[in-house]
Amino acid sequence: MAETIGGYLIRRLGEEGVGHVFGVPGDYCLTFFSLLEKSPLQVVNTCDEQGAGFAADAYARIKGLGVVAITYCVGGLKAANTIAQAYAERSPVILISGAPGAREQARNPLLHHRVRDFDTQLKVFRELTVATAVLDDATTAASEIDRVIALARRHSRPVYIELPRDMTLAEIAPAPVRSLPAETSDPEALAYATAEAADKIAASKHPVILAGEELHRFRLQDRLMALVENSGIPVAASIMGKSGFPESHPAYMGVYEGAMGREDLRDYVESSDCLILLGAMMTDVNLGIYTAHIDRRSAIYAGKDRVAIGLHAYDGVRMEDFITALSERHWAQRAFPPFTHPLHPGPFVARDRKMTVDALFRQINAFLEKDMIVIADTGDALLGASDLFISDGAHFLASAYYTSLGFAVPASLGVKAAAPKLRPLVLVGDGAFQMTGLEISTAARFGMNPIVILLDNDGYGTERPMLDGGFNDIKRWNYAGLEQVIGGGLGIRVETEREMAAALARARANEAGWSLIQVILDRDDKSPALRRLTAKLAERVGGKC
Amino acid sequence: MAETIGGYLIRRLGEEGVGHVFGVPGDYCLTFFSLLEKSPLQVVNTCDEQGAGFAADAYARIKGLGVVAITYCVGGLKAANTIAQAYAERSPVILISGAPGAREQARNPLLHHRVRDFDTQLKVFRELTVATAVLDDATTAASEIDRVIALARRHSRPVYIELPRDMTLAEIAPAPVRSLPAETSDPEALAYATAEAADKIAASKHPVILAGEELHRFRLQDRLMALVENSGIPVAASIMGKSGFPESHPAYMGVYEGAMGREDLRDYVESSDCLILLGAMMTDVNLGIYTAHIDRRSAIYAGKDRVAIGLHAYDGVRMEDFITALSERHWAQRAFPPFTHPLHPGPFVARDRKMTVDALFRQINAFLEKDMIVIADTGDALLGASDLFISDGAHFLASAYYTSLGFAVPASLGVKAAAPKLRPLVLVGDGAFQMTGLEISTAARFGMNPIVILLDNDGYGTERPMLDGGFNDIKRWNYAGLEQVIGGGLGIRVETEREMAAALARARANEAGWSLIQVILDRDDKSPALRRLTAKLAERVGGKC
Repeated sequence: MAETIGGYLIRRLGEEGVGHVFGVPGDYCLTFFSLLEKSPLQVVNTCDEQGAGFAADAYARIKGLGVVAITYCVGGLKAANTIAQAYAERSPVILISGAPGAREQARNPLLHHRVRDFDTQLKVFRELTVATAVLDDATTAASEIDRVIALARRHSRPVYIELPRDMTLAEIAPAPVRSLPAETSDPEALAYATAEAADKIAASKHPVILAGEELHRFRLQDRLMALVENSGIPVAASIMGKSGFPESHPAYMGVYEGAMGREDLRDYVESSDCLILLGAMMTDVNLGIYTAHIDRRSAIYAGKDRVAIGLHAYDGVRMEDFITALSERHWAQRAFPPFTHPLHPGPFVARDRKMTVDALFRQINAFLEKDMIVIADTGDALLGASDLFISDGAHFLASAYYTSLGFAVPASLGVKAAAPKLRPLVLVGDGAFQMTGLEISTAARFGMNPIVILLDNDGYGTERPMLDGGFNDIKRWNYAGLEQVIGGGLGIRVETEREMAAALARARANEAGWSLIQVILDRDDKSPALRRLTAKLAERVGGKC
Repeated sequence: MAETIGGYLIRRLGEEGVGHVFGVPGDYCLTFFSLLEKSPLQVVNTCDEQGAGFAADAYARIKGLGVVAITYCVGGLKAANTIAQAYAERSPVILISGAPGAREQARNPLLHHRVRDFDTQLKVFRELTVATAVLDDATTAASEIDRVIALARRHSRPVYIELPRDMTLAEIAPAPVRSLPAETSDPEALAYATAEAADKIAASKHPVILAGEELHRFRLQDRLMALVENSGIPVAASIMGKSGFPESHPAYMGVYEGAMGREDLRDYVESSDCLILLGAMMTDVNLGIYTAHIDRRSAIYAGKDRVAIGLHAYDGVRMEDFITALSERHWAQRAFPPFTHPLHPGPFVARDRKMTVDALFRQINAFLEKDMIVIADTGDALLGASDLFISDGAHFLASAYYTSLGFAVPASLGVKAAAPKLRPLVLVGDGAFQMTGLEISTAARFGMNPIVILLDNDGYGTERPMLDGGFNDIKRWNYAGLEQVIGGGLGIRVETEREMAAALARARANEAGWSLIQVILDRDDKSPALRRLTAKLAERVGGKC
């Protein structure tokens, strides 16, 4: 019997290393869900499509591909923001949407879930993805599936697949394999760029690498390591790139983020006579909301397909080839500068005093173990986390550029599915938790054990210093009480360091389910990074700069 | 001092009768929120943007205009699905999004919350609204604001306004008022259409009006009443149009929805020799998932700008003018047929037996009072509610065509803000509640008192009969326990009719806050309408028809 379109799609996902699909079923995608259930892939159905989208993004960052399956419009459009995030943050997510059957659409009827035209959802996702495919033709379905999967990987960005429900079980026509043309560097441009960069680095006194998120997205960590170890050039990370380079390595200096970050590191980076930016998107967040003082004349910048040295650029040079070529040169050995990561965790002595943001992050830092992965939501959870010491292995996830609230709890589902041996440690503010935090219910259903640390400062603490008003208030919940509502987990409320120490120990021991630690913080308390950031942002809220 | 763009926008909303703005603040819209807070409008900030979008939709249906204010992309795209719903269901919602300042965008930087281009969000909302405006020019801002407000009203559909943050306080340039050209019918076409329709009606034996949602959206209830009382033609409602015509009126026959609805009414409507469809969109849900047997040759159909009689149509005839013209004719008097609304509530005797779906709706029917408005979420909450007896005044709200899950709880916020004297009675399934139900928190914050009746049948009960699998399961929560988590409300779990009677009485008396009644139902129990519907839908899931 010939393979069906749905069957082919599922087989191809499995071949690409996908083991889980996140989503919410609906009548336009029920047949596909039924096929999934009979397949080796596991369905993780979340409370809301927003949760599925964020979970798949996190999964994609770890496994190289993540999948959301949802129904037409009422499902897909709920996930629009999460797909936008995957685009902005370079995460290869495949959104698979059911749709009315090709034959049902024939007379243009007003079928339920329809917005304006039958292709309205498709048009929306054309804006939010790098490729779209509508599987309405059995003769092209296989090559279309292959094409969009390849494009998701190539760009490390989301793609959209629409599957009309009457095509799910349609027999797929055998089709020749159409693969994308290979990406190659322009050999001459590569040679020139490498030679010029190498000369510039060799002539410099204090070169430093700023390692960004694209190294992680395109799986170039090993090449970076080869370059660093051969050349002796030290490494700082952007906040989006945090943990892409092992933080225990003697070459690692910490997170650079302009005026938001630590002063000693900022001075070192900004006074470098050769700053090498690798895969670090020039976002406002990476650049400390444009407080970075980087002298372009002495900088080298490599992005996915382009290298810039000083004020001129080489197009058609792939970052991968550029880093490889640099790493293979013969370098005069340099010693890594003696630069101590200041938050390298020592023991934390918990005392019987009221918790502060500063103490909380020091306490968490001492608590982190090698099997943990930190997932920080937007707000002070992210800013405060930038100086946490993350053990080796890219164990830090955040929406550090797109900065969508509500990412972290659902992301822990994706992480746990992608890497079952890792323990997700979620840092989330109370505002973000009220958006998507109830997805701990999904953790309970699937036996996942995230430790959720909820920074409860009674509202939108990141916004208060910019411009305050009643709109920054939210209702204070007894979050710990969710233990009784949802089940399958542990809820603990803490006010002091000592209570926190006990709570962390209980959470660590609670291997079977979720743990939620509600940490009561002063309404105006904040991390140093947030203090610096909000002062900067406040200037812009009213358009003053 | 000249008025600012933000100030003008707020003043115009107030002049249009808007008293509340739903939203979530963010740095790109903080200044606008601050202006709102100082204005006579009240900000209702919800837990998530999805909640704000649904609340504004409900508000718009009652007040004729609703407003959502959110931040750029991470806020706006979370509300995409709710704006799509407003489009599909003809609800005039204004989405106001903050955006990076016009000057900040100048060098095309990677500012946080940006997806692909600065106009990506604008392009998305072009697909989901009838008009968009970017207020980046002080000389056109006033006329643009006026234009999109007028278009929202004219089409009874959503519009999009983008306000770059540095324009919020920009002084608006005085501009001439530009109003839309008036909509008028083609007088000849109107005269011919009216005459032909009147003849057809006069010659018929059993004419019947099917009243749809557009009568409510375009505020034509009074004209319909005049027509009905002058002519003696009885009225059935579509499910989307339910409660647009007063259900206590002797002309009212109930909800017609093809094979999904009551058989006696279906027979009456389908055997009519002159079926007059007024403002009823020909959606699959309105037509009982295309189980309606309507003979087009004997039908008259009026939509917003078009009248069809039999198989030919008159363009340029406005529904409003057509109904007015018909109502003003001299009609030979007919008596309304003696047709008893079968669910006209009698007293319900609660016994000590396990609750069933059937008993639940009869019990609710007896409980409803004139000050209540029923808001039904998608699923059996909606289907079961179609035969509830709704007292006069359009006191029934649902997403009956777009059928997005999660509408009802947030909608109760919009209803309460729009009509403080009404008591929202929310009917919602457990699956939908897990998506947006925590917005009861917003009810608590703003002292609103919805009564939420949660039909807890342990999963996606509407989908199980179509195609079941583990993907239709969700975690069963102790929903009543939310009383302890959120505060400001009452949570009650019931299993029997007698417990339900006590719970309803307690909820009724709980005037100050939300009430949540978790009703435990058998997993496979369902309303008769759902039983008929899912049998029909199951045929299509696999594309069999």
